[in-house]
This record gives sequence, C-alpha cells and structure tokens, in this order.
Amino acid sequence: MEKELRVGMVGYAFMGAAHSQAWRTVNRVFDLPARARMSVICGRDESKVADAATRLGWEAYSTDWRELIARDDLDVIDVCTPGDSHAEIAIAALEAGKHVLCEKPLANSVEEARAMVAAAIQAQAAGVRSMCGFNYRRVPAVAVMRQLVESGRLGVVRHVRASYLQDWIVDPQFPLVWRLQRDKAGSGALGDIGAHIIDLTQFVTGQRITGVSGLTETFVKERPLPSAAAGLAASADGSGTGPVTVDDTALFLARLDGGAVGTYEASRFATGRKNALRVEINGSLGSVAFDFERMNELEFYDATAPGAEQGFTKILVTEADHPYMSAWWPPGHIIGYEHTFTHEMRDFLEAVGTGADPTPSFVDALQVQLVMDAVTRSAERDSAWTEVAPALAEVAA
Amino acid sequence: MEKELRVGMVGYAFMGAAHSQAWRTVNRVFDLPARARMSVICGRDESKVADAATRLGWEAYSTDWRELIARDDLDVIDVCTPGDSHAEIAIAALEAGKHVLCEKPLANSVEEARAMVAAAIQAQAAGVRSMCGFNYRRVPAVAVMRQLVESGRLGVVRHVRASYLQDWIVDPQFPLVWRLQRDKAGSGALGDIGAHIIDLTQFVTGQRITGVSGLTETFVKERPLPSAAAGLAASADGSGTGPVTVDDTALFLARLDGGAVGTYEASRFATGRKNALRVEINGSLGSVAFDFERMNELEFYDATAPGAEQGFTKILVTEADHPYMSAWWPPGHIIGYEHTFTHEMRDFLEAVGTGADPTPSFVDALQVQLVMDAVTRSAERDSAWTEVAPALAEVAA
Amino acid sequence: MEKELRVGMVGYAFMGAAHSQAWRTVNRVFDLPARARMSVICGRDESKVADAATRLGWEAYSTDWRELIARDDLDVIDVCTPGDSHAEIAIAALEAGKHVLCEKPLANSVEEARAMVAAAIQAQAAGVRSMCGFNYRRVPAVAVMRQLVESGRLGVVRHVRASYLQDWIVDPQFPLVWRLQRDKAGSGALGDIGAHIIDLTQFVTGQRITGVSGLTETFVKERPLPSAAAGLAASADGSGTGPVTVDDTALFLARLDGGAVGTYEASRFATGRKNALRVEINGSLGSVAFDFERMNELEFYDATAPGAEQGFTKILVTEADHPYMSAWWPPGHIIGYEHTFTHEMRDFLEAVGTGADPTPSFVDALQVQLVMDAVTRSAERDSAWTEVAPALAEVAA
Amino acid sequence: MEKELRVGMVGYAFMGAAHSQAWRTVNRVFDLPARARMSVICGRDESKVADAATRLGWEAYSTDWRELIARDDLDVIDVCTPGDSHAEIAIAALEAGKHVLCEKPLANSVEEARAMVAAAIQAQAAGVRSMCGFNYRRVPAVAVMRQLVESGRLGVVRHVRASYLQDWIVDPQFPLVWRLQRDKAGSGALGDIGAHIIDLTQFVTGQRITGVSGLTETFVKERPLPSAAAGLAASADGSGTGPVTVDDTALFLARLDGGAVGTYEASRFATGRKNALRVEINGSLGSVAFDFERMNELEFYDATAPGAEQGFTKILVTEADHPYMSAWWPPGHIIGYEHTFTHEMRDFLEAVGTGADPTPSFVDALQVQLVMDAVTRSAERDSAWTEVAPALAEVAA
Repeated sequence: MEKELRVGMVGYAFMGAAHSQAWRTVNRVFDLPARARMSVICGRDESKVADAATRLGWEAYSTDWRELIARDDLDVIDVCTPGDSHAEIAIAALEAGKHVLCEKPLANSVEEARAMVAAAIQAQAAGVRSMCGFNYRRVPAVAVMRQLVESGRLGVVRHVRASYLQDWIVDPQFPLVWRLQRDKAGSGALGDIGAHIIDLTQFVTGQRITGVSGLTETFVKERPLPSAAAGLAASADGSGTGPVTVDDTALFLARLDGGAVGTYEASRFATGRKNALRVEINGSLGSVAFDFERMNELEFYDATAPGAEQGFTKILVTEADHPYMSAWWPPGHIIGYEHTFTHEMRDFLEAVGTGADPTPSFVDALQVQLVMDAVTRSAERDSAWTEVAPALAEVAA
Repeated sequence: MEKELRVGMVGYAFMGAAHSQAWRTVNRVFDLPARARMSVICGRDESKVADAATRLGWEAYSTDWRELIARDDLDVIDVCTPGDSHAEIAIAALEAGKHVLCEKPLANSVEEARAMVAAAIQAQAAGVRSMCGFNYRRVPAVAVMRQLVESGRLGVVRHVRASYLQDWIVDPQFPLVWRLQRDKAGSGALGDIGAHIIDLTQFVTGQRITGVSGLTETFVKERPLPSAAAGLAASADGSGTGPVTVDDTALFLARLDGGAVGTYEASRFATGRKNALRVEINGSLGSVAFDFERMNELEFYDATAPGAEQGFTKILVTEADHPYMSAWWPPGHIIGYEHTFTHEMRDFLEAVGTGADPTPSFVDALQVQLVMDAVTRSAERDSAWTEVAPALAEVAA
Repeated sequence: MEKELRVGMVGYAFMGAAHSQAWRTVNRVFDLPARARMSVICGRDESKVADAATRLGWEAYSTDWRELIARDDLDVIDVCTPGDSHAEIAIAALEAGKHVLCEKPLANSVEEARAMVAAAIQAQAAGVRSMCGFNYRRVPAVAVMRQLVESGRLGVVRHVRASYLQDWIVDPQFPLVWRLQRDKAGSGALGDIGAHIIDLTQFVTGQRITGVSGLTETFVKERPLPSAAAGLAASADGSGTGPVTVDDTALFLARLDGGAVGTYEASRFATGRKNALRVEINGSLGSVAFDFERMNELEFYDATAPGAEQGFTKILVTEADHPYMSAWWPPGHIIGYEHTFTHEMRDFLEAVGTGADPTPSFVDALQVQLVMDAVTRSAERDSAWTEVAPALAEVAA
Repeated sequence: MEKELRVGMVGYAFMGAAHSQAWRTVNRVFDLPARARMSVICGRDESKVADAATRLGWEAYSTDWRELIARDDLDVIDVCTPGDSHAEIAIAALEAGKHVLCEKPLANSVEEARAMVAAAIQAQAAGVRSMCGFNYRRVPAVAVMRQLVESGRLGVVRHVRASYLQDWIVDPQFPLVWRLQRDKAGSGALGDIGAHIIDLTQFVTGQRITGVSGLTETFVKERPLPSAAAGLAASADGSGTGPVTVDDTALFLARLDGGAVGTYEASRFATGRKNALRVEINGSLGSVAFDFERMNELEFYDATAPGAEQGFTKILVTEADHPYMSAWWPPGHIIGYEHTFTHEMRDFLEAVGTGADPTPSFVDALQVQLVMDAVTRSAERDSAWTEVAPALAEVAA
C-alpha cells in the first residue's frame, strides 16, 4: 500500500504556487509508491500565508520555518524561498530527519552549497533523502534528449549551445526586486536561469564542465525601489532608487570532460524572448535542439539516416512511450510549464517511496554552483580561463 | 462570500479525467463567485468508478445517473458520456433543476439537440443554466482571435480555413471502439473533431455557416472487435471484425452569413498530425492563424502596418493581459491542453455564480449540430449545396 | 557534340523575364545534349520589346509572332503571352515544325486545349516536341515528394490538401489588370494559381482527379481601370471602373482515382500570404508537406520509424543527391523561384536534345484544364458533384 | 550612357562559379551606371580554366594572373582564389590601376591585410576602387536589419548572438582539402565562416568589436590526403594522411563599442546545420533574428507595439520596397544564395560607375581580420581577454 508523505512547504510566491499545483496533481495522475499530503505551508506574513493556504490547498499554515521543521507530523520539507535562506532551512530540516526538496540554485555561494552537501550526506546514512529542484530535467523532451545521448544516437558530443533568455527587466523603470539584489539572490541571470542550462546540459550530455571563460554585465545599474515584490512583477514605490547588485546577463565559453566545447548565455535583456531556454547539442552521429517556449517539441537530426532524407525531425513529445506522457492526454494534447513540477514531484515520491536517492542530488547541484562560481571569478579576471573542480572529489576529500 | 456548487459528473474516461483535473484546479487559480465541490462521480462499472473517484478526487461515486440526478445535494451535472446518452441525461438533469455542463457534440442528432434546447430554455426561466463544452474556445489564443475579429482588426472576413487532423486510426488493425460506431458516437471525425472547428470558426468570426457542400469517406470499412475501450487507445480481442459505421473523414465547403467562404476538413487519417486543430482567417485588413499543437502561439498579420514591416507576428499568448493568463505563470511559461477545461470551468462558475447564462449555449451547440447534419445530407446527395437554418429561428418558431 | 536550339520567345513581361533568366542560365549550370540560343524575343510594342531584348539578352526582336514562327532559323517557340493567345500561337508554331514550350494554363478553354493537344499529337509524329510550363514541378522538394510517393514511402494516399494563396488584389482600388478579365485570362485565381496545385498534386500522387464539387467567389466586383499593366503591379488611370469578370477565389473538394480525397483552394484574397503554394499529402505509411515560401524545405513524416522518434523531418533539399541540386551550390546554400524555370528549361533541353517527349505534355495540361472546367461548372450548379473525364480517353477517341 | 567595365576574374572553383553567375546576371536585372563585361577568367590549369570559360561565359581565359593584371583591356580584377594569394594579387592589381573586388577573408594574416589596405588607400587617390566580398551583407533581410538598427527601431543594442554552423567535415574520413590547411586558408572555420558573422554583426549594429575571449578546437586532427579538391566536396586518394592545421570550430565572447556584449560561434562540426548563419540582436526597443537557411525571412520584435500584440514578426523580405527586391519577382517569389553575389556586383558597379568607394572597404575587412587575430591569440592564451584595435586608427597612424 502506498505510503503517505506529509509535506511542509516554505514559501508561497511564484515557486510556492507552482509546487502546490504539482503536489495537488501528482497522485491524481501517476501511480506511485508514496502519496503526498499537503500538510503545512509556511511564510512570514500571517495574513498572506493564511490566504495562500486556502487558495493553494494546504491543510494548515505556519509563520515560522523553525517551528515547521520541529513538528513531528511532517516527512518532507519543500524549500521555495529565495536563495539566501536555502542553506539554513535545508540543513536544519535534514538534521531534523526530514526529506528535503530544495529549489535551485542550491545556495547563494559555493560555501553554503558545500555545507548543504555535507548535511545531505550525513542525513543520507539515516535514510533521509534530498533533491534539488532543477525542474527542466523533467520536461519530457529533455528526458528524450538524455535518452538519445545515453544510447549513443548522437555519437561523440562535439558542441553544446545553451541559452536561457528572458526580457522582464529591459525597462529601466522596472523596480529593484529581490532577484536583483545580491544578498537575497546570490547572483542575477547567472543563478536564476543560467543555473538551469548548466544543470540541463550536464544532465543531457552526461559530461561535466571542466573550465570556463566568463563575462557578465549589468546594463541598468540603478533602479527604482519596489513597493512590493510579487513574483516577477512588481511596481516602484516612488521612494528613490537603489543599486542593482547582480548581473543582467552572464555569458561563458566552456569545455566539458568528454571533449565537447560549449557556449552559454543567460540574459534578462533579450527583448522578445520570454522564457527561451534553448539547447542544441551536436554529436558525430546526430544532433538535438530544444526550445522551452515549444516545450512539447524536440528536434532530432539523425546523421545515419539515408542522405537525401536527413533533416531535423520535429518530434511532438506527447506519445505514450515518451517519458512521463502515458499518464497524461492522447498524442498531440500538449502539456505546459507546471507539468515539469508535477514530474519533479513524481520522481521525488517515486524515489523516496522506494527508499532510493532522488536526482539531481545536492552533489549535482553543488557541481552547478561550482560552475557558476568559476564563471563569476573568470568574469572578474578579464575572462581568464578558470577550472571547475569535480564536486565528487570535493565531497570525497 | 463565494457560493458552493456541488458537482455530479457522469463519465470517468478521457473527458472525465480532463474535467476532474479542471474542477480540482479552477478555484485554486481563479478568483470566482462560486466554488466547485467535487461531490459525486457516476459510472456503470462500480469497481472502475470507485477507483476513479479515489484517483480523480471525488468525494463519492454512484453507478446510476438517474439516482445522481435525483439527489438534492447536487447543483451541477457535468455530462461526459458518449453522445448517445447526452440528451437523456441532460434533459433529466435540467428538469430536476440542475445546472448542466454537457460535453460536445451536444447530441447524436438534430432531433435530440432540439429537445435539449427546449429543455434548456424551459429550465432557464427558473434560473437553471446550461452550457456545451466546446473547450477550444477557451484557448487563450483563440480568445485573442475572437477579440481581433470583434474589434475590427481583420476588417471584412473573406476566408475561413479550418482543419482538425488526427491519425489514431490509420492502422487498419486499430479496433472498432465506440467512437467508430454510429449508434454510440453519432458520427465519426465529423462530430468528434469537426464539431470543434465548426463551433470555433463561428465563434471567432461571429458569422454563421449558411450552407455547405460536403463529402465524407470511410477508408477502412471493417475493423477488429475491441477487447476494451480505454479512451482513444484500445486493443482487439481476437473475436472477429465488425463494420465501421461512421466517417473517417469529412470535408466541406461553406458560406458564412457575413460573406466569407470556407474550407473545412476533419480527419482521423492524417498521418503524423496528432491533434492538429488549425484555423486561418483572412480579412480585408489582416489575418490570423492558429495551430493547437502550438496552442500558446497565435500568428497575426496586420495589413495596416508599414509595408516593409508586415508579416505574421507570432504572439506568444502568455502575457498577463491575454485572456485567462494573468492567473497562471510568468510570460513564456506555457500552458497545455488541460487548461482549456480549467478555463471552461472558470467561465461556467463565473456565469452560474453571478446568475448569468454561460456560453456556448445549447442553442449555439444546436447550430453546430445543424451544420453537421447539413454536411451529412450533402455528402449523401453528391455534395449538393445544402442550406443550414439558423437555430435561433428554429427556437423562436 | 551538343545541339544548338534557337529559341524565339513571345512575351516579355513577368513570364518573359523569368524565362529569359532561365534560358540565359541553364547551359551555364547543367551539362545537356542541347544548348539554347536566345535568338529572338517577340512583342507588339516595338520600343518595349527592343528594350527587353537588350536588357534580357536576346539577339534580336520581332513585333509579329506570325513572322517569328515563319522564320526558318528558329527551333523552339516559347509562349509567354496571356492565355487568350496560347492556342493560336502554339498551334501555328507546331504546324510550322517548331518545338513548343507553352506557359500554363495551357489555354483559356477546354476547347482550345483540345485543339492544341490535337496539333501536338500531329506534330509529335514528325518529331516536334511540346511541353506545358508547370514550373512548380521543378522545385527540387516537389520532385522529392514525387519520388517518395512513387517509391511507396507514403503507402496508400488518403488525403491531398492543396492551397495556393496570394493577396495582391485585396485592396479594392487595385486596378482591373488583364489577369482580372475573363476574355484575356480565361479565369481568375482558378487558372492562374489553381492550375498549379491541380497539376502538382496529380503529378506528385500519380493520381487523376475524377470529380469535384466547386465554389467560386468574386469579392470585389468592380475595379478602377488600369493605366498600364506591368506584371502583377499596376496603377489606376482615373478614367472610371470596370467589372471584374473572373473569380477572386476558387475552392473545391475532389476525389482522385486512387481513392484519395482532396481539398483545394486558390485565392488572391488571403491577406498576408504572398505566394503560398502549400501541399500536404497523407498516406497510410507517411506524409509530406510543402510550402513554396520555404521552397528549399520538405517536411516528411515516416510512420514506419520507431514510434518515439516519429515526427515531421524538415529536409533541406539542397544536397547533391536531391533532384537538380548537384549542379548548384553546396548544401544549405538555397535556391529561389527563378530556379524552377532553369530546371524547366533543363528538362526541356534534355528531352528535346535526346529526341524524347518532355513532360508535362499538352495532354497532361488538358487534364488540368478539364478539372478547372469541372470546377467552374460545379460552381455554377450549386456545387453539384461534377465528373472529370480522363484526357487520354478523349485523345484516344 | 552606361560605362563598360571589363572584368578579369582569378579562380574558377566555388567562388568563381558564384561570381560568374552574378556578373552574368547583374545588368540583366538592375539598371546601373556601369555594365560588366565578362572578359577573362584566369586559373593555373589550362584545360580546366578553358572549360570554365566556356561553361561560365567568359570571353577568354588566361593561366597567369600576372599576365591578366598586365593587360590594358581590363578594368576590374575579381579575386576568387584561396586566401594565401589574395594579398599578392590584389596589391599588384591595385598598383596596376585596376579596381579590385577581393573575396573574404581579405587575407590570411593581419600583416597581409595591412599591406592590402595601404595599397588600396594609395590607389584610391587615383580613383581606383576596392571592395571586399562579404556577400551576406547583400541579403535583403540583412540590409533590412541594418536599416532597423540605424533608424533606432531596436533602441540601444544589448546583445549580439551570432553563429555560423556547417557540418561538411564531421566525417573523419573527409579528406584534407585546402580549406583545412593553414598555409592555404589561414585559418579554418574562423576565417571561412566566422569572418562573415564578424563582418555582418559589425555592419548591422554599426558597432565595432573591441575585445574578445576566444576558444578554438580541432576535433579531428589527422585526415586522409585528398585526390583532388573540387569546391567543398572531395575524395581521398588513398596515399596516407596529413595533419589538420586549422580550427574545426572557433568560439568567442565579445564586447562592442556601443556597450553590447556578444557570443560568436563558427563550426564545421554542427551536425545537421548546412549553412546556418544565424544572427540575433536584442536592443532596448526591439530585436531581430535571422537564419540564412531561410534567407528570405527576417524576424522582427517591436517592443513598442501594444503589449498583447507583441511578438516576432516574420517579414517575408520579398516586397518591392525591400532593399534589392524591386528588381526581382513579385512578393513571395523567393530568391537564393547566388543573389547575394548579384547584389554585391550591383553595389560594386553602382559605386565604381559613379566614382564612389564601394563598401565594405579593405579597411572594414582589416577590422574583421583584427578580430580574428585577437580570437586566435586569446585562444592561445587560455581565453585571456584580448583587445581589438580600431583599423582606422592603424590606418591613420
């Protein structure tokens, strides 16, 4: 019989809403060894968190994450806060024996991430599980990409071409929300969206980024102070301006340990690109290309097909034999952004329910953090080549 | 304070699952004057309906729709059965004072549809509401199309070009499921998917189809008998074959009452097209084009723009100022098929909650039925031109 | 050693310029058994035809097509005039023993087309060749489509979906050029662009259209008189208006002799579509889709590929092993509209140079004419189904 | 009356054929102050160059470029040889008072390029003109991009994203043709295709690249010796292998003098990408995106349009009011690769015919060379940031 896992979630903004939709849906759609119970939602503002509990479907709410973790009627802590509190909350939760699902990026610094990995490894010995929420791994088309590389259909991977482009702060009057403040967010485009393409390409290729040459830029250096920060939208409050302390864009070249080279770009200034996470991988036998704005499609080029028939095949990834899709609708009935979270919760419940470690692990997430750190340091040193150590070696040491 | 509407749903297969996902989600996302309560799910097979209740999140189940309608603790009956039982269930529900949401096509014949309209009009006098579930009207891009035509941006509409293409029965060994039997389904591609493009184009253009020249074809006339029919997928049971009694494809030319001409095509034999509902409308000042397989996109051509800059603009319909979208995710974070049902429930709850009539009404759905009937009759008479009467005139008469 | 074929061309407007570019280029690019010599260009206005001769590269000019045909130093007559003079010129040329390349549509009526076929058959006995210029057959992607159908890759063809959409007369102030006058052009969209999709789909499928249900419409019935007609562009001269005597759009349903059904649409009122000749063919094993505005691409769906990898493959038809392409540039270096004429001249010279009959023959072109005639007659009789006789039977009889 | 310019062209392979097609066509299509006469083609192999003269339409041939330059019956020297002979031929031609059109990249080294610039400046004083053949500037869509940036429609340019991807040497058995040898080609992907995107983006943005961080890679380091090199295709001769001495791919990050940042990538290992020159530019008010494989299309995002109607507009750049296009076919009748050269010759003849300096000048081409040199040096020094001097300053100094 299926196990019940009682979830306490910290945070109720954009990620909180997305996670709630996923927790609410996952067991309605997938047959799993564990069932999530939406027990407690936690946030500092009582009126808002109470509203969120009602609206999003949580049984109770709390205004103190320490109290949440101290409860003995919860099994899972889902961390959806800004990055500056990830380490503290996740480590406390792990130490309290709670399974942890932590939003990405894992932390605001390599140091914090290392501490989290240490806590995760210690907890793991007691059967406590941890996972970082790189939800784009759960796009069915991305999972197919992984399968194609893994099964050798692309041959030797030569090129990785990854960009994650948005445009929500192009207007210089857009206010200084928390995502534009280094102390809250750790970094700007790099950690918010660059982290996704770093993780995704390492996941899909099975290769690790070993070195980078980076460049970052902040195009708009001063912005109006915000009246309130509601997700990505916000308005100025008229009380002056403040400095933008994070990158608007981060670009880097990379080498991967299987011999591939890569270009990476994360930007919030790509006018007209709304959530354009794009990845193309070229191998000796084939290529794949993906654009999140058309997330149900994958383009696959098979260089072993008859010459006159070669081309990029637009696979509509909605067939029952595509990853995750047998649980949903008939072919051609597409899914959306929120499904990536439902799939994330599916994989989490599947692993925890069967006593296995879910992926991506905190170690995987530390690897991403090490790349981001190398990009930042390279950018500070005139793009000088900067090596990226393997997280596993760190952990072993 | 918001009103509670207790829903009883008949049917638990493909449409039942889609409606359940929508009922479960709608009040979590939209602020509405009424709240849906998933009270009772109804189906004939007790074991299956009990499972469905648990899995889909209904409080109780019933194996008898008459019993369901007789209950006084339900406010809404949601009809998700095959077309042959729509009329009987919907009329009984309306007579019992229940608001009715009925899946499309409204009925299996014009005669049934007329009876349903009569019942709806009678019930309406007592404040009982009825709606037919043409969910594709609720695609945000379709709603934008409607706005563009309505506000005059397309000028005088000249051309309607609509097709709904699938390929799930191309294999002659695909078994004879209920959708291929006239007594259950009424018609084949025509009623199942052709109905959608008839309704959608009449909705978007604000014009009524006044006459048609039709052609239908059944490419595979005999199929294996099915062992069980699970949604669109099924397997043969080895016990012989039976005749396909519906159309595999239906094509027709049309004239609309605003002067436009149209081509329409519904097919289940369009190899490679999975759920390709495509509509293009050309007007004297502009055009729009839509493909459901990319349902978050709308192409809009503005012939009043500077000449050298004209072109089809691919609008990513995920902005907060697009219909329905402010409730969802940030721009570029796309939605999927199931959201059309969530929007349908939103519009239903909004209307019923405020005491208004939701659309499309049973009269609108009868209009679609009249077109389908004319196509069938034209096809039977060598494609002879066949007039389509206005449903309103019928109703008035 | 290669044979020289001295060409006399009648007409110097749009088609005259396109043919000249092709005659000028064909032997520079292809190795052929015959070499075209651009001997004489012919037109009624001496000043204009003299200019055209110089600009387009003809050795001499003539103002009288009868004189042209009477010359004994010409081998080929290339007919690029409006349709009302095709029959007279082509028949005279054939009787004078000249090979004839005649622009499409072959004639302005079935009667004329029959007379041309009779002349062609008589001339053929003396080794005189004739061909009709359906240039879109020479698009490499279209040739690949033909190969795919012919080799069985599509299986049994079920659906033909063809449209040819333009928008150059959407503006009601666009003047009454010759293409809008029945006595000059024979018909409107039907003969000008509809002829192409009729020929192309019969060519690609290898099937003949056996019956149609048609509908035509003239949206703008009166237009300003033109000051001068220069190709497709023209300006009004302020001297009043005249009636449009041809169709603005022609739509029809069709059955083909291999069991396929089809929808066809030709329009000059499809705002935003400039030269959108689109064809999709669905078979039991695969599909192809083509859009001339992206003429270097062909979409091919192979339903025999592994299920999870199926999709429309966008073949960039620029490889050396694609038809016609080895003579041009490296892969990915695309070609354009004018190349269809260069390929047409290539095929003409190849056939005539080796003493073979080029295709499409006048009989093939008569078959197209019979379909157009049936569409017109059906449209006049309320879209009643109208059979199309096989041209070959006519010819044999 | 129009001036005659007698052209002598050195080289008869891929570029020789492309230039010939353009010289043959340019005065047939455009009205220009000068007319090109295809006088002499020059190459070392007498039999091949004689054949080429006949096939491509040159009046005479020569086997010695020095003899060509010494002739007093030529006005223009068109240099289509590999890069190792550009400097010698072009400088000699300029000194002999011939106008020079030189293929790109201008030279195989900055040193050579500087010498060529010096010669060009000296010749310019005597009215002798020089131009470098960056043909992609002449794509109408690229010209429109330039207009949009220049007229302020994009606002402040923030991002340049450029790649030029091919795949013709993915197979390790593809032989060691001259383009893979440093002494002949100067560099690999960098000079052959990277040069194009450097020039194109500097042209379109009006900004100069001021510094780069580069990375190059040679994936296949040893290849079979070729039997003969015919354009991009070739076969091995079985006599062993030799070292590849150029880059297979070159990637770099860049800063431009207007504040933009850029990513650049040139590769011959992008499986499935045939001639994918892609450029996207994001500005504060809009964006443009272009892909040469669809060279007739330009995507333009106008961020000043009404919010709900914003999107990338696919402009089909075939209208009479688009650059170069009034000379060609009606809207929607697309053009191809070779037209870029016809436009190049048009601009050259227009300038020379009116006594003006054509662009891109040798100075512009030196600027490209300086960027390539900086990329190479950066790649050799672990991607260290490397400044790029302004060529104009060099020239002035």
